[in-house]
Amino acid sequence: MIVMGIDPGLGVSGWAVVIGEGEAGALLASGAIRTKPSDDMADRLLAICNTVRDLVGTHHPDEVAIEDVFLAKDARAAFALGQARGAAMVGAALQGLPVHSYTALQVKKSVTGNGHASKEQVSYMVIRLLDLKEPLHPADSSDAAAIALCHLARCKDVMQVVGGRA
Amino acid sequence: MIVMGIDPGLGVSGWAVVIGEGEAGALLASGAIRTKPSDDMADRLLAICNTVRDLVGTHHPDEVAIEDVFLAKDARAAFALGQARGAAMVGAALQGLPVHSYTALQVKKSVTGNGHASKEQVSYMVIRLLDLKEPLHPADSSDAAAIALCHLARCKDVMQVVGGRA
Repeated sequence: MIVMGIDPGLGVSGWAVVIGEGEAGALLASGAIRTKPSDDMADRLLAICNTVRDLVGTHHPDEVAIEDVFLAKDARAAFALGQARGAAMVGAALQGLPVHSYTALQVKKSVTGNGHASKEQVSYMVIRLLDLKEPLHPADSSDAAAIALCHLARCKDVMQVVGGRA
Repeated sequence: MIVMGIDPGLGVSGWAVVIGEGEAGALLASGAIRTKPSDDMADRLLAICNTVRDLVGTHHPDEVAIEDVFLAKDARAAFALGQARGAAMVGAALQGLPVHSYTALQVKKSVTGNGHASKEQVSYMVIRLLDLKEPLHPADSSDAAAIALCHLARCKDVMQVVGGRA
């Protein structure tokens, strides 16, 4: 299965496309979508939506996994993040893809075993699980890869339960 | 000028299409976009985006005005609202329309003269300014009409400044 992970943000959204089954996987592509604070809000959101849509068209993921980032520092920051996440989800949904949500705690727990792991620990495990030579840059795309890996692990668990092997 | 006002929300988004110049205007159409809490988040956001896009295609507004609803009760509520607003803005932007943002304070100040006016006072002024027989239902579409009226008034002010008549 090919999964596109997205770590949404208004200024920078990380993305990573991972192929695999279960805990490990291989990185197919990664990057970041950047929008300028000086640009019109609708233009920034449209850029996020259209870029996600184009990336889905280019990399053909089967499913999309996106971080649930409601733990912002205040309501205003949460609102800005929410708008970016809404635009990214619409971009994937316009292509007819299922979009799965995971909290940061779920992602950290899945890739490191500790829901409160440090960013460095998550980055380290992304390198290990994807057999990379160096950390992904920017950090947002590493976080997106962790989200994709979390979804792959979750799907494996579900498949095992369905198959009666869990 | 024809303005489409949107009062975004994840469960209910009010909308109203108003034609006019300056303070007064006439209502062309209004309604609400509803999504079910039991539905998938991506599907709900896509429904908001697609409905706004379709409404723009049907009613041909020149511009869109949308409420800036960051004053939510907590970060989680702000995040949900932000997602809905992001989806609505993308819907309008996909049609190539300019999208203008106004805070609740700006809208209330514009239509009632008091930035802290009650909901009833805003609803009353919407009835007066649009020469309606009764309040718009649901209340979300009345709020959307107030946002459209706020934008019409703001555009008139700008035109006057540009024309040197202010």
